[in-house]
Amino acid sequence: MSERARGCEIEVRLGQRAYPVRVEPGLLGRLGELVAALAGVGRVVLVTDETVAGLYGEAAASSLRAAGMEPLVVVLPAGEEHKTLATVEKIYDAALDAGIDRRALIVALGGGVVGDVAAFAAATLLRGIRVAMVPTSLLAQVDSSVGGKTGVNRPQGKNLVGAFHQPVLVAADPQTLATLPEREYRAGLAEVVKMAAILDATLFERLEHERRALLARDPTVLTPVVARCVQLKAEVVERDEKESELRRILNFGHTVGHALEQATGYSRFLHGEAVAIGMVAAARLCERLGTCGREDAGRIERLLEELGLPTEVPADVGLQEIERAIGHDKKAVGEKIAFVAITGVGACRQLMLEPAEICDGLRR
Amino acid sequence: MSERARGCEIEVRLGQRAYPVRVEPGLLGRLGELVAALAGVGRVVLVTDETVAGLYGEAAASSLRAAGMEPLVVVLPAGEEHKTLATVEKIYDAALDAGIDRRALIVALGGGVVGDVAAFAAATLLRGIRVAMVPTSLLAQVDSSVGGKTGVNRPQGKNLVGAFHQPVLVAADPQTLATLPEREYRAGLAEVVKMAAILDATLFERLEHERRALLARDPTVLTPVVARCVQLKAEVVERDEKESELRRILNFGHTVGHALEQATGYSRFLHGEAVAIGMVAAARLCERLGTCGREDAGRIERLLEELGLPTEVPADVGLQEIERAIGHDKKAVGEKIAFVAITGVGACRQLMLEPAEICDGLRR
Repeated sequence: MSERARGCEIEVRLGQRAYPVRVEPGLLGRLGELVAALAGVGRVVLVTDETVAGLYGEAAASSLRAAGMEPLVVVLPAGEEHKTLATVEKIYDAALDAGIDRRALIVALGGGVVGDVAAFAAATLLRGIRVAMVPTSLLAQVDSSVGGKTGVNRPQGKNLVGAFHQPVLVAADPQTLATLPEREYRAGLAEVVKMAAILDATLFERLEHERRALLARDPTVLTPVVARCVQLKAEVVERDEKESELRRILNFGHTVGHALEQATGYSRFLHGEAVAIGMVAAARLCERLGTCGREDAGRIERLLEELGLPTEVPADVGLQEIERAIGHDKKAVGEKIAFVAITGVGACRQLMLEPAEICDGLRR
Repeated sequence: MSERARGCEIEVRLGQRAYPVRVEPGLLGRLGELVAALAGVGRVVLVTDETVAGLYGEAAASSLRAAGMEPLVVVLPAGEEHKTLATVEKIYDAALDAGIDRRALIVALGGGVVGDVAAFAAATLLRGIRVAMVPTSLLAQVDSSVGGKTGVNRPQGKNLVGAFHQPVLVAADPQTLATLPEREYRAGLAEVVKMAAILDATLFERLEHERRALLARDPTVLTPVVARCVQLKAEVVERDEKESELRRILNFGHTVGHALEQATGYSRFLHGEAVAIGMVAAARLCERLGTCGREDAGRIERLLEELGLPTEVPADVGLQEIERAIGHDKKAVGEKIAFVAITGVGACRQLMLEPAEICDGLRR
């Protein structure tokens, strides 16, 4: 990471599929410049959603135009319920009606849903065209825009259809986080805490000390924090691009988190909120299993609380439902489940546990 | 290629994505054995279409059952008009309703459409599960089952959505060609002629000498011919997996062929028939351009004729329509088109030509 006065650039080292992630306040205004620097780009297809279009669509489009491009703008309906193949088909049709060829570039401007859907369209249009990610939510900046996971939901569950397709460029502008709804911003912080909890004790301490500045979205704190999360994610992805083993550590808190989302019909909790509850449950279980100490679990719970995130399964959600949902988790392999345990703040390892054992963490 | 008494095995050498292609009469009856030899296979999803299900569905399923598997059988509607995302979704739903995990294997039993659709489903289910190809048409055995191209059609054109996804195994049983409709079988021979014309003068001579045995579908001739085509295809794919440059030589005859299919609404000619006409047009143009001699072009035309394939654009199809369709071909890059020229029987190179120049080959 080369830290400059204003921003940072992280290289995701994946051989022929390597790409830079730039984190810098005001970067959106330089989008055209960044895209123009890519080799042999044909038509640029700017994909965004109704919400983000109103906030940053014109800034992105005019930056591209200023650099000599004529972006085709595709505005998708906003919301997780539109993370479907039908939405991907809107991108297919717009791009193919415009007669794109293999030199075309999709620019995904928005949060996790826009990124996942637009990058999946890129993975499959003409058997794969390039995609540049311009994440505008905290979750997308620190997590989903880096690593090449793309996908859509199916009636049977989330992200069940997709592809691994690395972007050619990620441009994260922390200034865009200023307009995030408070709840969504805090849910993004849950993924920041997750990265620190499993991989970086120093970052975890920084989050503890600078939590007020973080909650105030102070760009001087946000920029290095986002960049550090990207670097941690990049290092995991570099060692395990296709999620065979190691990459699963990024699922810390997700086993219970996914199950809680499922048991509550994906409507009650944002993903990050469910993960926050899942991390506290996981940390308590780790304490009980002896993989980490009481103080470690306590710090995770305390930090999440101080960041305004939920830490308990609500009383009206049955543990049995969560246990059943864990059993159906798509990461299930046979009877036991791959479970990410912390071995202290900033370190982790994987265990194979039964769903009932994992649910133990939910009992106080 | 290790040629045994009854069959051949060709290795497609793609590093971590390497896989064997087995060509052998009676292989369908050993499908279960071949699949059982793969490591860590979970649920087997046998995808076929209504036509092939009636002919070979039970043989395939019972071979899998005899090897201890319980295949989930998905029967798709037959025909190119069903090479759509809606058909892919049928596979998604059947597989996801059955609760597959990442160890699942899709077995694609059928011709080119089944293979393209089922392999695209495999490329995108859970971000990629394994696929084994069991091609039952000549076109699929010599061409589409090898190389990892998958895809579906869109209203804007053919194969505009897809992915590169190599199979883990290809099992081609030439005995299944016995039930192919005559017209479809001959259309498959066009692709055999194509491989010989661009890459292998010895194979071309063999086709000339053994054309009667080929037309009679004599397995002792068919098996080595199919195996040789697979080997030629494998060598091209090994050197250019993602069709950046070299792999385009496989498009010999396809520029005019695709345009003719498009100009006639994809209903009048089978793909191989259109390619036969396209190859004759290309060969005549090559003769005119001086890349090959008159005798070379004559041999290609004569062999296709003797195999019962069409060699002329029908009088009622306007050359202007074909020229326009060539201009819209997705392989277009800027104004000129990548055109595959033979430099003699069994050798080729690529030229950049304008659509009007390519159409010259259609004028006698």
